[in-house]
Amino acid sequence: MSITIEKIASHLNAKLIGDPKLSIESISSVENATKQQLVFIEAKDIQSKVDKTTAGAVICQQEVKTSKTLLIVKNPRIAFAKALELFDRPKDIKQGIDEKAWVEKGAEVDPSATVYPFVTLRSGAKIGKNVILYPGVYVGQNVKIQDDAILFPNVTVFKNTHIGKRVLIHAGARIGDDGFGYVWNGSQHYKIPQVGNVVIEDDVEIGANAAVDRATTGTTKVGQGTKIDNLVQIGHNDQIGKHCIICGQVGLAGSVNIGDGAMLGGQAGVADHVNIAPGARVGAQSGIIQDIKTQKPLFGTPATEASNFFKSHLIISKKLPEMRKELLRLRKEVEELKKNK
Amino acid sequence: MSITIEKIASHLNAKLIGDPKLSIESISSVENATKQQLVFIEAKDIQSKVDKTTAGAVICQQEVKTSKTLLIVKNPRIAFAKALELFDRPKDIKQGIDEKAWVEKGAEVDPSATVYPFVTLRSGAKIGKNVILYPGVYVGQNVKIQDDAILFPNVTVFKNTHIGKRVLIHAGARIGDDGFGYVWNGSQHYKIPQVGNVVIEDDVEIGANAAVDRATTGTTKVGQGTKIDNLVQIGHNDQIGKHCIICGQVGLAGSVNIGDGAMLGGQAGVADHVNIAPGARVGAQSGIIQDIKTQKPLFGTPATEASNFFKSHLIISKKLPEMRKELLRLRKEVEELKKNK
Amino acid sequence: MSITIEKIASHLNAKLIGDPKLSIESISSVENATKQQLVFIEAKDIQSKVDKTTAGAVICQQEVKTSKTLLIVKNPRIAFAKALELFDRPKDIKQGIDEKAWVEKGAEVDPSATVYPFVTLRSGAKIGKNVILYPGVYVGQNVKIQDDAILFPNVTVFKNTHIGKRVLIHAGARIGDDGFGYVWNGSQHYKIPQVGNVVIEDDVEIGANAAVDRATTGTTKVGQGTKIDNLVQIGHNDQIGKHCIICGQVGLAGSVNIGDGAMLGGQAGVADHVNIAPGARVGAQSGIIQDIKTQKPLFGTPATEASNFFKSHLIISKKLPEMRKELLRLRKEVEELKKNK
Repeated sequence: MSITIEKIASHLNAKLIGDPKLSIESISSVENATKQQLVFIEAKDIQSKVDKTTAGAVICQQEVKTSKTLLIVKNPRIAFAKALELFDRPKDIKQGIDEKAWVEKGAEVDPSATVYPFVTLRSGAKIGKNVILYPGVYVGQNVKIQDDAILFPNVTVFKNTHIGKRVLIHAGARIGDDGFGYVWNGSQHYKIPQVGNVVIEDDVEIGANAAVDRATTGTTKVGQGTKIDNLVQIGHNDQIGKHCIICGQVGLAGSVNIGDGAMLGGQAGVADHVNIAPGARVGAQSGIIQDIKTQKPLFGTPATEASNFFKSHLIISKKLPEMRKELLRLRKEVEELKKNK
Repeated sequence: MSITIEKIASHLNAKLIGDPKLSIESISSVENATKQQLVFIEAKDIQSKVDKTTAGAVICQQEVKTSKTLLIVKNPRIAFAKALELFDRPKDIKQGIDEKAWVEKGAEVDPSATVYPFVTLRSGAKIGKNVILYPGVYVGQNVKIQDDAILFPNVTVFKNTHIGKRVLIHAGARIGDDGFGYVWNGSQHYKIPQVGNVVIEDDVEIGANAAVDRATTGTTKVGQGTKIDNLVQIGHNDQIGKHCIICGQVGLAGSVNIGDGAMLGGQAGVADHVNIAPGARVGAQSGIIQDIKTQKPLFGTPATEASNFFKSHLIISKKLPEMRKELLRLRKEVEELKKNK
Repeated sequence: MSITIEKIASHLNAKLIGDPKLSIESISSVENATKQQLVFIEAKDIQSKVDKTTAGAVICQQEVKTSKTLLIVKNPRIAFAKALELFDRPKDIKQGIDEKAWVEKGAEVDPSATVYPFVTLRSGAKIGKNVILYPGVYVGQNVKIQDDAILFPNVTVFKNTHIGKRVLIHAGARIGDDGFGYVWNGSQHYKIPQVGNVVIEDDVEIGANAAVDRATTGTTKVGQGTKIDNLVQIGHNDQIGKHCIICGQVGLAGSVNIGDGAMLGGQAGVADHVNIAPGARVGAQSGIIQDIKTQKPLFGTPATEASNFFKSHLIISKKLPEMRKELLRLRKEVEELKKNK
């Protein structure tokens, strides 16, 4: 597959300097590019970076002297993302319902949607425009999936879940499974039935093999534009704000509230009923067991301000053994002083 | 769907005070209830909580003055769980074997069981009464699944596994995959074939996308009534007792023993061959690398008693920098004293 | 199933002492063996261990006096692994493409391969000799799977992935999903399309429900002979060397480099763009945020040498409260000395 630089420039709304017919085969990083590849360069030293790269074409912020073809844009990183889109168009779409799918009576599917083989659609499910359901997807009763959402292979969505527009759910993610709730009845853990649902707002992305539990009663919510990475666990009744970033293997217990724009690093954990402020920044592997009101970076378990954490960590690993020795020395000297008094 | 309060009272074996024909549409929390919803109230201040709630009906322990309908029971939380059950009855059951399933010769299925499309049943598999196998489930050779068990979509169960009565296995859980065992043969990691199996006893629940590996030789066992949350890893040859609680993303290495009633918090990890006492309580994100004999709460990596852990943590984050300053001050003063001696 | 000890001896290239017709039903551990079972004994005290075991046959390094049947080999542990293989031969193979599979036009399948029901093969996929694709496997466009690889149920492999010879991918693993990359465009996280691929070299094993993301541009690579356990997250553009061991629930961010033969303990995490030396040893639950150049065992978050970590940990949990008291005592004594000066 190749695309003319002219066509890319038009997609990016970029100023084109150089040969408009240059044929681009793919996007690359500055280091290993070929003449048929396009790269992007940010910020300073643009001239020297353009000189150095072996790419045939460069996205950058300002014009420099070069024989290479340039695409001038305001934000090269965003332009790079948009250029990649041109090379990522799904070419495998097959509109309509495959005869190897199982569509229960009472499910509604827009004719522009794609339902691949081995997909299950239960009664009451409503599938919007241009939705793509890859093989092995399970859609439960009364699930609503809005326009342009894509569910990759083997995703399961349980009854009464709502999925917004342009949502992407990656392979094997589980939306709306039972929350983890029991009450000890004297002889066993008695299951608390989980009768709530899950709402995933527009533009959310959920990673491979992640799990979003449905609410005990009420709704587990993932807010608009929030991005969730692979193998993340979202507990029952969690309320996640808009435009959050939740990295791989993060685990949230039940009834957690996360404010808009918060970021949680990989493998971080949050205890049940904890509230996290909008814009909070939780470091990787950190453990949050109390409400967070700051936007300063946090680290450790239990988490403290990252600056303190790293100061303490330095003292522990370097200074603590030395402090012990110093204490013993002082002890001796004080004894000596007391004797000689 | 709505149910009369009379019918709910009878299901809970509760004393009904008020209008027996009141129609309940769902269960809710005290804060946001409507007149057609039922809530539960525990412990003290029952009168004021009943006064405050906007619910039409309340489960509680004793009679109070109110125009609302009351259900009087001994344990409101258990009654709440039982009431939820009425609203959680699967209404999607379709007994028998769907023609889109693949049932190998030699598999036996009770006529009361439900085998949905895209289910695989290998030869020698035995499926008990009222078992439900959702779409995409894979059941290997000689797997036994006992009465009333439910396997949600895309669960895989490998050969020779035994699954007890009323077991629930949530979407995408993997039961009986190979344990992680190799021996270095001088040039590569040589795979140790895993020829054991897995036994899941009655009333166990296993979360979405969890993995329970089969034993190298012998059996990996999960004891009766134990509840395992999403994305948990159970290693080969682990022996898990009865009525344990294992929270989300916990990881157990191989040959771990966990006593009855132990609780492991989210993201905790246990090293191989470690023994954990019955009733042990392991905090979230903790790492267990030695045998645990206490029932006192544990925390940290390596885990120590939680009370000590939090004391030390406080000293580290607050007192350690101050201790360093104090040491330097003392050092100066002692020098001064020595000079003036 | 039972196999004569004679046949096992020949498979192991072992010296057989005893009854060649002894019938072995399975392999066991030394403690619980029956007369129809084979066990292995390593290193010292061979005579007493052989005397004690109730097994009918023993793999060991040298001849001892016994009525039991012996298999003498150089490396008993490797011989044990090889003996297990005899009992682990898949007996469920059904060569050819099942009519319940969905094979798109343009996919090529070697006639010796097995394609089970509910498998999806997209156009351009090439499936080598003796490959087994279990039910529910999804193979994307232009995926190449080389000879003798096995993909267990519900594995998904996205477009352009290459999978080497003898690779094993366990149930529910996701190969080639989108990497986690966005750029903030002032109002939302704008997705950076992920147009690279994944290369899995020969003899790699990937655990159940693990996820290996495809590269943003270029290739995410897992080197020859590397073994990856369940629920592991491999980020976009990671380069993993040969013969590494990556234990359960490890998480690697993007663009991580891991040298040949490195070992990462369970639940360890590695930050993006970090380089880890060949042969590095990272302890369980450790967090790596800087390049690692040593082969000494590491532990903690951020990780330090394990010996230091455990020394500091001991001081913290035992010595730190005592140090505080000692400081206060010294402070008083110095005050006293100053007064009396």
